[in-house]
Amino acid sequence: MTENKYVIEPIGFIRSELTELAKAPMQGSEGGYEAWLEVKPQFAQGLDGIQPGDELIVLTWLHLAERDTLQVHPRGRQAAPLKGVFATRSQDRPNPVGLHQVRVLEVAGQRIKVAPLEAIDGTPLVDIKPVL
Amino acid sequence: MTENKYVIEPIGFIRSELTELAKAPMQGSEGGYEAWLEVKPQFAQGLDGIQPGDELIVLTWLHLAERDTLQVHPRGRQAAPLKGVFATRSQDRPNPVGLHQVRVLEVAGQRIKVAPLEAIDGTPLVDIKPVL
Repeated sequence: MTENKYVIEPIGFIRSELTELAKAPMQGSEGGYEAWLEVKPQFAQGLDGIQPGDELIVLTWLHLAERDTLQVHPRGRQAAPLKGVFATRSQDRPNPVGLHQVRVLEVAGQRIKVAPLEAIDGTPLVDIKPVL
Repeated sequence: MTENKYVIEPIGFIRSELTELAKAPMQGSEGGYEAWLEVKPQFAQGLDGIQPGDELIVLTWLHLAERDTLQVHPRGRQAAPLKGVFATRSQDRPNPVGLHQVRVLEVAGQRIKVAPLEAIDGTPLVDIKPVL
């Protein structure tokens, strides 16, 4: 098989009051932050049709993750046995794409307000998809 | 903001009897193919803990997609008005990451048999996550 690699150019960035990783809850169900999806002007046409109330899946690039981690103690609990990262939602993984299901609160041009979204300010945005 | 780009190295590839895009249904709900997730040896440790019956989210890189498409006729229907790709599940989009929810049928070392998964043979594998 080919050994191709692929380059992601972020389509935008998360704008959030969350600025430190430590403040982010371990999983989405434990807290709910509002955030803005700020899409770059050159990709704004791709947002046409997104409306308040829509359920979206937001894909982010977890730029602070460790990419050489293959096993973790689930949820950071040292007492828990090590588990493969693909069996966990750990941020640390070879291709740290974050998945977030959110609801659209407001659409303002190329900015979309959503909740709940736990990702720190400046997190790169990879893709946006509707929930089927 | 930084204009960083990020490089994805596939963790493996999809092995499927599906070899042509035309045979792939438009959406997962319309058909169900079995496929193997074949993970590269250097990432196999990341699979520890995945078992038959598990529900997983598989992220792929849709390597045949057109990355400069920002608007499409939903589901290829020319009569439907153009819509932004982020409001659709079109394969064509700036960062063509595919999302597939599957069930584990079999685990054989670094190969995991799953269904339903509609992606052609050789599709690069970006990440695997458990459904929460």
